Amino acid sequence: MKTVGILGGGQLARMMALSAAPLGLRFLVLDTAADACAGQFAPMVVGDYTDEAALAEFASKIDVATFDFENVPAESAQWLATRVPVFPSPRALAVAQDRLAEKTLFRELGIPVPDFADIDSRAALDAAVVKLGTPCILKTRRLGYDGKGQFRIKSPADVDAAWDALGAQAGTVGLILEGFVVFQRELSVVAVRGQDGEFRAWPLTENWHVDGVLSASLAPARVDDAMNAVAMSHARKLAEALDYVGVFALELFCRDGVLLANELAPRVHNSGHWTIEGSETSQFQNHLRAVLGLPLGDTRMLGVACMLNWIGAMPDAAAVLGEASGHWHDYGKQPRAGRKVGHATLRADTAHELAEALMRVGAALDRHAQVAPVIARLRD
Amino acid sequence: MKTVGILGGGQLARMMALSAAPLGLRFLVLDTAADACAGQFAPMVVGDYTDEAALAEFASKIDVATFDFENVPAESAQWLATRVPVFPSPRALAVAQDRLAEKTLFRELGIPVPDFADIDSRAALDAAVVKLGTPCILKTRRLGYDGKGQFRIKSPADVDAAWDALGAQAGTVGLILEGFVVFQRELSVVAVRGQDGEFRAWPLTENWHVDGVLSASLAPARVDDAMNAVAMSHARKLAEALDYVGVFALELFCRDGVLLANELAPRVHNSGHWTIEGSETSQFQNHLRAVLGLPLGDTRMLGVACMLNWIGAMPDAAAVLGEASGHWHDYGKQPRAGRKVGHATLRADTAHELAEALMRVGAALDRHAQVAPVIARLRD
Repeated sequence: MKTVGILGGGQLARMMALSAAPLGLRFLVLDTAADACAGQFAPMVVGDYTDEAALAEFASKIDVATFDFENVPAESAQWLATRVPVFPSPRALAVAQDRLAEKTLFRELGIPVPDFADIDSRAALDAAVVKLGTPCILKTRRLGYDGKGQFRIKSPADVDAAWDALGAQAGTVGLILEGFVVFQRELSVVAVRGQDGEFRAWPLTENWHVDGVLSASLAPARVDDAMNAVAMSHARKLAEALDYVGVFALELFCRDGVLLANELAPRVHNSGHWTIEGSETSQFQNHLRAVLGLPLGDTRMLGVACMLNWIGAMPDAAAVLGEASGHWHDYGKQPRAGRKVGHATLRADTAHELAEALMRVGAALDRHAQVAPVIARLRD
Repeated sequence: MKTVGILGGGQLARMMALSAAPLGLRFLVLDTAADACAGQFAPMVVGDYTDEAALAEFASKIDVATFDFENVPAESAQWLATRVPVFPSPRALAVAQDRLAEKTLFRELGIPVPDFADIDSRAALDAAVVKLGTPCILKTRRLGYDGKGQFRIKSPADVDAAWDALGAQAGTVGLILEGFVVFQRELSVVAVRGQDGEFRAWPLTENWHVDGVLSASLAPARVDDAMNAVAMSHARKLAEALDYVGVFALELFCRDGVLLANELAPRVHNSGHWTIEGSETSQFQNHLRAVLGLPLGDTRMLGVACMLNWIGAMPDAAAVLGEASGHWHDYGKQPRAGRKVGHATLRADTAHELAEALMRVGAALDRHAQVAPVIARLRD
């Protein structure tokens, strides 16, 4: 029986363990927090991701490693890869961690991206702000936690403040300037690629964010076949270029009918949670099938599905559980402002039925704003 | 967050934990074996079911208790019920544990049963053998483990040997004589009843046994509406009579178009494993919804499904995982002759597609005999 090590013990690790246990796997989770929610269903090693003793203990007990979040230090992933197979590869992780490398790869592959510029000096920033125009956003190349490491430049007058805030990092983690994109829709492709190169994607998903956090997802996204084919083609090219193994998400903006790549998430993704009940094989099980080198499962949908994220605290479960196709996911976390603590998935055979169910749930939980954009799309 | 205690840590407890964790539950398993397979995904108390210290520790850490097998001593269940809520009730458990009480209840409810007689003496046995005819089976009233406690009486000449083997137990656990039933089909109703009395059943399932162990299940069973309605009515009456809470299975024989009740299993059941992928809500999640007093989930099927049991050792997973709707369940157990170590579920939209998939899997695994009766039924 194989033991899979997961770096990071949040809800993604938890759902991986619950979904892929039937493959006959055991799991071991490495997390800095002893109360990480995956630890309720899998044994843990508690330690920092850069703590070599913790990493060594972790590596000694596992057959293969994967990630529940992408901010694992690249050096830790590489060190681990010298001991056990690691999927996705540290290289794919490194590209996804670096906004500049990621966007450069998108462009090389012919995948349209919002304008961006590498910023290695104040002079480069000044020139780029002129070229990209305002508003634009100065960001560190590597992801900051909790939304840190970003500065929005609303007009040229903000450049001094932006440089004061982030300029010192130009020579360390690096900086990137990104054009501000006015888009009509946010979409994501959640896809999986096997060790043998087989590629499968779930139906395209539309997403709605509130304050930068995913609020709701709808699958399949209501787009035409041509746009769907473009999105799938982008995801496949990306996976092949990175020799990617496992599940990933490609986040896309739709602006005036054109898809622009926003970000690659090198892991199972919040916009794919609906696959647990809404698809023949969930993203979590297919990720582990890929990591283990097993045949990939079918990604077809059964009807239509909407995922609603619960942020901060869990609402009452009864309204969702009272729906014929209502499914509840409480991650077993303590409530905390801004924290993803759970989600619900509602399934239906038709768009009309799903809209009706969302109306009832939105009313029962007094969450009209959360369900309204999804209902509007279903009634388009 | 509530902690559910499960007496018994086999595959049923394991699948309960994996399926119902999303309800925000924690689990604690009590088992005599430290390597019980549920312990791979839930913390355990290791101890005998009659060990009061172990039971006390177990009770002190849980909010509600349930069972993964029905042979928990009735006194242990009753003791536990004085400390925490226990579902199903110790009374329902006691009825299901006693073949005579169970069959008497079936008869009282107007549910046809094979002939049976209470055997409290050698004279009673002699009279009953004449009345029921041979072949017939002398059994202890309470379930023996591993098929012990049964003696088949093929002709009147076997009565002496039967009494020698089991007569001493007539005054202790009690004995029952059961008529031998020649039946054409074995069916089961897997159903759930909530704390509020709501009753829901999954579609009727047909089952095939080999050497007394379930080999394959097919849902929905291919019977007419009238027989289906009778089976559902029997299950509902039984649940109401016992004020049952949770999932149970009613095993039925079909003899010449008449359904005879064989046994009540007061727990999630092997013939309901297909519900994990084949139904909107699995038997495992609905059992916990009932135990927690939550709304019951929809029991409708999605297409047709066949469950194949793996006994003794796991076959190679690739043939099943390579099927579009093939799902694998390895219980994480050591191989051992006669042991249930896992199962597979194959789903399809049509009977024809399911038969084709079973042909491929049967051929790939060299298990023609296991799939043949299911394929024959699908092609009826």
